[in-house]
Amino acid sequence: MNVHKIAVIAGDGIGPEVINEGVKVLKEVAAIAGDFSFQFTYFPWGCEYYLEHGKMLPDDGLEQLMKFDAVYLGAVGYPGVPDHISLRELLLKIRKGFDQYVNVRPVKLLQGAPCPLKDVTRDQIDMVVIRENSEGEYSGAGDWLFKGKPEEVVLQTGVFSRKGTERIIRYAYELARKTGRTLTSISKANALNYSMVFWDQVFEEIGQEYPEVETNSYLVDAASMYFVKQPERFQIVVTSNLFGDIITDLGAAIAGGMGLAAGANLNPERIYPSMFEPIHGSAPDIAHQGIANPLAAIWSASQILDFFGHEVWGAKVLDVIEQAMVDKKVLTPDMGGAASTEEVGDEVVKILSALQ
Amino acid sequence: MNVHKIAVIAGDGIGPEVINEGVKVLKEVAAIAGDFSFQFTYFPWGCEYYLEHGKMLPDDGLEQLMKFDAVYLGAVGYPGVPDHISLRELLLKIRKGFDQYVNVRPVKLLQGAPCPLKDVTRDQIDMVVIRENSEGEYSGAGDWLFKGKPEEVVLQTGVFSRKGTERIIRYAYELARKTGRTLTSISKANALNYSMVFWDQVFEEIGQEYPEVETNSYLVDAASMYFVKQPERFQIVVTSNLFGDIITDLGAAIAGGMGLAAGANLNPERIYPSMFEPIHGSAPDIAHQGIANPLAAIWSASQILDFFGHEVWGAKVLDVIEQAMVDKKVLTPDMGGAASTEEVGDEVVKILSALQ
Ligand SMILES: CC(C)[C@H](C(=O)O)[C@@H](O)C(=O)O
Ligand SMILES: CC(C)[C@H](C(=O)O)[C@@H](O)C(=O)O
Repeated sequence: MNVHKIAVIAGDGIGPEVINEGVKVLKEVAAIAGDFSFQFTYFPWGCEYYLEHGKMLPDDGLEQLMKFDAVYLGAVGYPGVPDHISLRELLLKIRKGFDQYVNVRPVKLLQGAPCPLKDVTRDQIDMVVIRENSEGEYSGAGDWLFKGKPEEVVLQTGVFSRKGTERIIRYAYELARKTGRTLTSISKANALNYSMVFWDQVFEEIGQEYPEVETNSYLVDAASMYFVKQPERFQIVVTSNLFGDIITDLGAAIAGGMGLAAGANLNPERIYPSMFEPIHGSAPDIAHQGIANPLAAIWSASQILDFFGHEVWGAKVLDVIEQAMVDKKVLTPDMGGAASTEEVGDEVVKILSALQ
Repeated sequence: MNVHKIAVIAGDGIGPEVINEGVKVLKEVAAIAGDFSFQFTYFPWGCEYYLEHGKMLPDDGLEQLMKFDAVYLGAVGYPGVPDHISLRELLLKIRKGFDQYVNVRPVKLLQGAPCPLKDVTRDQIDMVVIRENSEGEYSGAGDWLFKGKPEEVVLQTGVFSRKGTERIIRYAYELARKTGRTLTSISKANALNYSMVFWDQVFEEIGQEYPEVETNSYLVDAASMYFVKQPERFQIVVTSNLFGDIITDLGAAIAGGMGLAAGANLNPERIYPSMFEPIHGSAPDIAHQGIANPLAAIWSASQILDFFGHEVWGAKVLDVIEQAMVDKKVLTPDMGGAASTEEVGDEVVKILSALQ
């Protein structure tokens, strides 16, 4: 039997609460399917670990994770630990260390999901954002000169390599070709006169190899506007690390809120484990109350299923999330319900097993 | 009599069409007020000029503009002239050359303006975004190495100086104090580990001098989400050049569309002329049809009035824009009407003179 070994980093705040439900759903799917199973190993890394050990994870953390097929991450972040530590030293470290250069973020308005936009129908919000996830604006390169002096100046350098830019754009073209959908690049060459001129050039170059793919190119400012005004313009979207970060939160906002947004951090070559996460934060304000919405974590569980080749099951989990929202019987407070995190997970499991 | 000398760069596409209406409104206001007047001088700079002369404006362009109290800009951009030329070499050149380091962009949902958001009332969208306008991500610093080779790498460096960061943040604190409103900083320290850590630090430092100002700080991704979900969180907003670019287009989207969005590029010390512009583009697709919406250009005319100390008149022009939208009789097609650009301008003038 096919055993998928998953490293679980439940993390901080609501992380463990929502991840529990995702694990529950994955176990149920495996039990029903019968021809594969999951083995979960938990790692207590995150901000509590940091407060005790002075680091977010042990020095050989990545080595330990290498033994797994995937990482399932809850959320990191904690009042008292600066974000640029908690996130750079865990989330971003894994993304980079495991060369998870593709960040796949579906922006799809499921039936029953709350939408803040007037005059938008369900089928008008249905895209997949492919975000560059390993370099660019997030390279971490920079300098801080003349600290504390009047001439103090701080530099932050985005690093766009040919290899890094080509591979993400190529991944997006492949996906567009495979799915027969349009591909939109989001950049900003009119202001970022090196990086984004290069990005646009590579987008055009690679496009030569995919004459059958219909393409568009938007400035990031215009794209933000269209996400709100005409989201139907977008199908497959490819963009840089920072723009992808902004645009996918905006995507989450229009497609049901952060309670529903999932992301896969892929190393497509499968040399390193890939990582799956709800994209919301650790939400310390509602932690330990058992009211966090687990649907984003469950959606990322469905991405895990897809990744291991169980796309039929991945799609079923998504259908079940949709059905739970349409039923409206068991939803957390952020979606207008009164259910607990656990009850939502149980409901998803219940609908799943009733499918049999 | 107080004569305000305005350099008009009507620019490309719909630029001249909308600017005409703004000029018309300013003339009317001066005629009614009686104690000040405008003198308009036109400069034919932009992409057509570029196609003829190989440059967007003459070499002594800025010198020529120095003789004026303000610049009133339509829009630049033209198919066939790359954006990174047309915009960097005119719009951005003036912003930088005249040290117009404050970009003031109101995001205010006027009565009658179309809003794409459900469940949002007019008073929930009422902010002023103060965007850093002279450096940061737009510094233009970078490098392009190993061109065409596999090891090709492109660098884009954001430059954040103490002086530049302090002055914009201080400007925003002053405005917040003067108006008694909250101040929200938008940054991204968890990923941009030099520039935005510095930004947050300066925001906190300067805050010491303004204990009476209530402050917030959001990550740019979260802020984008809240613009759509809870815009009432924002009153005065201060942010970097790139984030301000993105967030104000998003602001325009929620507050009536690009047809209504205006921006002032200020050199607060008045050593150099300031520049006023609708923030929409040159929209070549609808140029020369006389159907472009002039309300953004008229709104920026109201910012000109404010800037010269005629705030009472500035506010009146805004009221008149609002009244025209509530009346719904004379609006351009993008706002659901059938009027021409000129008819909208005439209507605004008519309502203005009826105020007497
Ligand atoms: C937490 C933060 C560093 C991260 C990012 O900016 O990538 C997050 O916002 C995300 O989108 O996954
Ligand atoms: C045209 C472009 C360079 C400009 C910018 O990015 O600043 C525009 O989008 C704006 O917001 O004024």
